Amino acid sequence: MSEKKRFVLASRPDGMPTRENFELKTEELEAPKDGEITVETLYLSVDPYMRGRMNDTKSYAKPYEIGGTFGGGAVGRVIESRHASHKEGDIVQGGWGWQTHAAVNGDHVVPVDPDLAPVQSSIGALGMPGLTAYFGLLDIGQPKEGETVVVSGAGGAVGMIVGQIAKIKGARVVGISGSEEKNRYLSEELGFDAVVNYKTESLGEALERACPDGVDVYFDNVGGEVSDAVFLLLNSNARIPLCGQISQYNVSDPEPGPRFLPLLLTRTALVKGFLVGQYQQRFGEAIPEMAGWMREGKLKYRENIIEGFDNAPEAFFGLFTGENLGKQLVKV
Amino acid sequence: MSEKKRFVLASRPDGMPTRENFELKTEELEAPKDGEITVETLYLSVDPYMRGRMNDTKSYAKPYEIGGTFGGGAVGRVIESRHASHKEGDIVQGGWGWQTHAAVNGDHVVPVDPDLAPVQSSIGALGMPGLTAYFGLLDIGQPKEGETVVVSGAGGAVGMIVGQIAKIKGARVVGISGSEEKNRYLSEELGFDAVVNYKTESLGEALERACPDGVDVYFDNVGGEVSDAVFLLLNSNARIPLCGQISQYNVSDPEPGPRFLPLLLTRTALVKGFLVGQYQQRFGEAIPEMAGWMREGKLKYRENIIEGFDNAPEAFFGLFTGENLGKQLVKV
Repeated sequence: MSEKKRFVLASRPDGMPTRENFELKTEELEAPKDGEITVETLYLSVDPYMRGRMNDTKSYAKPYEIGGTFGGGAVGRVIESRHASHKEGDIVQGGWGWQTHAAVNGDHVVPVDPDLAPVQSSIGALGMPGLTAYFGLLDIGQPKEGETVVVSGAGGAVGMIVGQIAKIKGARVVGISGSEEKNRYLSEELGFDAVVNYKTESLGEALERACPDGVDVYFDNVGGEVSDAVFLLLNSNARIPLCGQISQYNVSDPEPGPRFLPLLLTRTALVKGFLVGQYQQRFGEAIPEMAGWMREGKLKYRENIIEGFDNAPEAFFGLFTGENLGKQLVKV
Repeated sequence: MSEKKRFVLASRPDGMPTRENFELKTEELEAPKDGEITVETLYLSVDPYMRGRMNDTKSYAKPYEIGGTFGGGAVGRVIESRHASHKEGDIVQGGWGWQTHAAVNGDHVVPVDPDLAPVQSSIGALGMPGLTAYFGLLDIGQPKEGETVVVSGAGGAVGMIVGQIAKIKGARVVGISGSEEKNRYLSEELGFDAVVNYKTESLGEALERACPDGVDVYFDNVGGEVSDAVFLLLNSNARIPLCGQISQYNVSDPEPGPRFLPLLLTRTALVKGFLVGQYQQRFGEAIPEMAGWMREGKLKYRENIIEGFDNAPEAFFGLFTGENLGKQLVKV
C-alpha cells in the first residue's frame, strides 16, 4: 500500500492565514470500500471562499473542522474502483479537498470528458467559478445591451468570465483589478472596454472616467473601498450580484464604511448575495452554452497553475495579495 | 373670485427642516381652463419621502423647486369643472400638493367613492402608503407562513399595514417603533407578535428576544442603527424591501456604519429599494384585496389628523420626531 499526503486545518487564522494554520500529514492510503473509488489527484482548486470556511462563524457553508481535511474541489484519475460507474483510468471531479489521493464515494464524483477541454477546466471555467459567473451575472445582474457592467476582482477566475459573458450580451464592460498585468490582459485579450487599477489610480475619478453613463450592473467579488466607490455611480434600478468580499475576508476588526441603504433606496437598486449551489438544477443548461462560447472563441480563460502539492497554502495566500491571473490551481 | 393659500419651498434645509424653509402664500384663486377642474382641498398627505425632495440631489424623484408649490398627494371636492368626467361636488384625489384650492388638469386626478371608505383613505390605507406596504411586502418580501417579519417604523402609515398583511400571510410579526403608545397599539389592536422600542430598550438584546428564530423579512422604513441591529439577525435567504430611511433624511454628514455586504453575502440575502409607482399596473389588483381585508376586520388603519392648513409644516416635522401614529394628514 502506498502513502498519501493531505492538508488539515491546524488552527483558525486571525486575519491573514499563515502556514501555521495548515498541517501537512503523510498517511497510509486507505483501500476503497464497496461503492468507493480511489482517486489520484491531478489538480486542486484554490478559491477565496475557503477563507470563510476557516472561520467558525454563521455562514452558508459549515466551517472546516480543526484537524479535518482542507476541503474544496479537485480533479483526479481513478486508480482503483469498487463502484459500477467508474473504472480505472477515468477522470473525475469531486470535493475531496487537498489530498494527493483519496478513497471517496463513487456517487459523489462527476465524470470528466478529457476530450472536451483540459481536465482542469472542470474545476475552473466550466466548473464552479464559471457557473458562478454565469448565474450571478445572468440571473441576478441581467445585463441589457448598451448597459454598463462593472466587475471587481476582474482578473480572477470568476471576474474574467463575468466580463466576457457581459460582452457577449452586448454590455459595456469595466474591470477593476489591482494589477497592470491583469488589466492589460483584460483589455487586450478579453476585450474589456475599460479597466481601473484600484491600487495605483484614484478610484473614484478613474471609475467616473470609465463609466460616463453610470453603472447598471455591479458584479462584486471584492467589497470594501472598491465597492464604496462603485456604489456612488449606481444608476436607477441597478443590480448588484454579490459573489465575494475578498477585501474583507482577512479583516479581524472591520472598519465601518458609508451607509449604503439610503443610496440603494434612491436608486431603487437590488443587491443579492448568492451561491452557485442554488442554481444546481440549471447547471445542465449553462455548461453546454459556455462550452459553445469557448469553441467560438468568445469565452477565454486563464489558469494560474502552481506546481507541487506541498505549495497549496502558498497558492491560497496569493489570492489575497492579488497575484493570481485567472483560476488558481495546484498541479499535484 | 376667492383666495387660495399654498405652501412653497422657500429654501432647502440643512438637516432637520424648519418653518423657515416654507413660505405660506395667499393668492387669488385661478379659474379653471378648458379640461381643468378647480378643487377645494379636504385633506393633505404628509409623508417622509417629501424630505428627500427638499434636497437638490440625484434621486428617483425630481427635487422640489425653490418657490414652487410643496408637492404631494391630496384629496378634495370639485367646486368648478371644465372637464367632461368630473362634476361639481365630486371627490377626487391627486398630486396638487399643499394648496387649499387648485385648478388642475382633470385627467390627472382619480375619482374617490365616498361610500367605500372615508375619503382620506384614498391617500392613506387604500392609497400610496397602503400600496407601498402591499407591493413591497408581497412582491419583494414574500413572507411565508411561520417566517419572522420585522418592520421598522412600524407605527407609521406604511409600517402598520405591512405588519397586518404579514399576519394575514401567516408570518410572525415584530414591530419596531420609538413610542410606547405606538407599540401598545401594534400589540393590542393590530395583533403584532412582539414589539421593540428602539428609544428605551437595548436594541440588539430586545430584537434577539423578539426574534428567537432570526429574521426572514425585514421591511425597512428607518435605516441607521435600527437596521444595523436587525441585519445581524438575518437568516439565510432573507429579503429586505427597502422602503424608507427616515433616520437618515435629516443627517447632513452621515456617520459611517458597519459594512453590510459580507453579511448579505454569507446570508445570501436580497435587498431591494423600490417605489410604489413601479407597481402602478397592478394597483387594480391590490386595492380591492385590501378593501376586502378591511371589511373582514383583518386590516385596520389609523390616521393622525392635524387640523388647519397652516399647520402642515408642523405635521411634517412630527414625522421625524416619531410623534405620528399611523398616516399623517392635515385636515384643511
